Amino acid sequence: LFVKILGSAAGGGFPQWNCNTRLSHLAWNGANSVQPRTQSSVAVSSDGEKWVLLNASPDIRQQIAAHKELQPQPDGGLRNSPIQAVVLTNGDVDHVAGLLSLRERHAFSLYATADVHASLEANTIFKVLNPAIVSRLAVNLSESYVIAGLTMTPFPVPGKVALYLENDESVQGAHTGNGATIGLEIRTSGDRRIAYIPGCAAINDAVIDRVSGADCLLFDGTVYTDTELADAGVGEKTGRRMGHVPITGEGGSLFAFDNAELKRKIYIHINTTNPILENGSKAERTVISAGWEVGFDGMSITL
Amino acid sequence: LFVKILGSAAGGGFPQWNCNTRLSHLAWNGANSVQPRTQSSVAVSSDGEKWVLLNASPDIRQQIAAHKELQPQPDGGLRNSPIQAVVLTNGDVDHVAGLLSLRERHAFSLYATADVHASLEANTIFKVLNPAIVSRLAVNLSESYVIAGLTMTPFPVPGKVALYLENDESVQGAHTGNGATIGLEIRTSGDRRIAYIPGCAAINDAVIDRVSGADCLLFDGTVYTDTELADAGVGEKTGRRMGHVPITGEGGSLFAFDNAELKRKIYIHINTTNPILENGSKAERTVISAGWEVGFDGMSITL
Repeated sequence: LFVKILGSAAGGGFPQWNCNTRLSHLAWNGANSVQPRTQSSVAVSSDGEKWVLLNASPDIRQQIAAHKELQPQPDGGLRNSPIQAVVLTNGDVDHVAGLLSLRERHAFSLYATADVHASLEANTIFKVLNPAIVSRLAVNLSESYVIAGLTMTPFPVPGKVALYLENDESVQGAHTGNGATIGLEIRTSGDRRIAYIPGCAAINDAVIDRVSGADCLLFDGTVYTDTELADAGVGEKTGRRMGHVPITGEGGSLFAFDNAELKRKIYIHINTTNPILENGSKAERTVISAGWEVGFDGMSITL
Repeated sequence: LFVKILGSAAGGGFPQWNCNTRLSHLAWNGANSVQPRTQSSVAVSSDGEKWVLLNASPDIRQQIAAHKELQPQPDGGLRNSPIQAVVLTNGDVDHVAGLLSLRERHAFSLYATADVHASLEANTIFKVLNPAIVSRLAVNLSESYVIAGLTMTPFPVPGKVALYLENDESVQGAHTGNGATIGLEIRTSGDRRIAYIPGCAAINDAVIDRVSGADCLLFDGTVYTDTELADAGVGEKTGRRMGHVPITGEGGSLFAFDNAELKRKIYIHINTTNPILENGSKAERTVISAGWEVGFDGMSITL
């Protein structure tokens, strides 16, 4: 099982385009203490040749340019790509906007829950993916799908609908757990297994049970503290209001998986405000001490 | 008048993500004879401090990262950007998808024709640009608007609606000339003037008159020959069918502006198949001999 972290930042990437906080400022200046990061996406493969994208970030073109594995094969057709499928975990812009860059008549399969497909279908701009060429396949929670030699099982996690779908006050900030946000279990025939959860509003027993024993957990590291955006002066919403459980504090992810027998735990989907982005920071040392790794663009995991 | 070409390629950029033609292959391999290019966008400024984007390409985040002028001011607020406005010339994905990356509560003005605004409004995903923060302003053809110290005048050019809006057979390939595609005249108080036309299906007298005498014309260089995509085996549509007059052949752009008294003529919006992308090619020499320049990412023009 080959895993490449294409983008390890949350929506907007690191630095966000209009962000002038201390960490972003370091990133704009090319400081060695921080590494810029593109938006949330992971590629997985059973053989190193056929790849499946987990979410399609707005930075997908840059991510393909950075990874030879995802580029056309020189001895393939005039149009070819090793990308066989895209699996979406929710309808957030940072996970779906990259679909707009996967035009040009390459056949692939697009997997998502029926709800996420419905929101894509309601946006005519996604018609650039011709349905005669790109198959849109609805997944049911807790059923398994074999995609490019990998067995993927979507499971519900506490989450929320994408902000742009919050038409209705009643769903604002709701932790639906009904498939608006999913996690993915990815398993090889040889029983290697990763769990991918880029967004999770709360960690309950069902989530812990679902990922227990995995060779690797890629987990929502959006914010270090729940009030981090407000504390930095760049937002009002808490992490949880955005659908992301914080790393630290009551109910945080830092120690939540301590009994889950995970071989590796890696934070992904890291927001521009999160202090773990700074090498050698107290926050980075804290998560490493607790057995976590801090994901970065280009991180490669072979299981 | 400061002009920066942020992205000089057509939709999909150069190379396109799944393209394995000769030129793309050179680009994937990092050959010196070609320079990779991001998607179609230009930034203009009257003072070098406040900038206006002409179109918002999917590569906007990468383009901001490549241009210090477009990054937050270190001595500005926690969220700040020199980008004051975005002006759209049509509703094509390569011109609008970047709007999805201009979230995060930065006030700017979005100018487009009423038709293009309507297509954005019909796509709820663009709600990520909160209308309380991002003003959507409809422009009328041939009226002038002062935007960040520059006077911009949209004018109609023969074009077509975006492919994803082609619901109706009757508009497919239609050269509407009704504002579905516009050009922009940009003028300083000191009467410096550029004309920006990234998409144009045919060059008629009205277009020539409109740009005559400009200090610089940035013009649609999508295809070198009308049948280039089919000839390369990577598409069926002609340049004109996609809304782009070819450079060469009957009615082409190469000599069309010879009597327009233009100080500079630069091709932009160059498709992955266009042979002018190769340094030293016969096609490149031909356009240079005819008085044109080949636009590239990072090209800077000061008038």
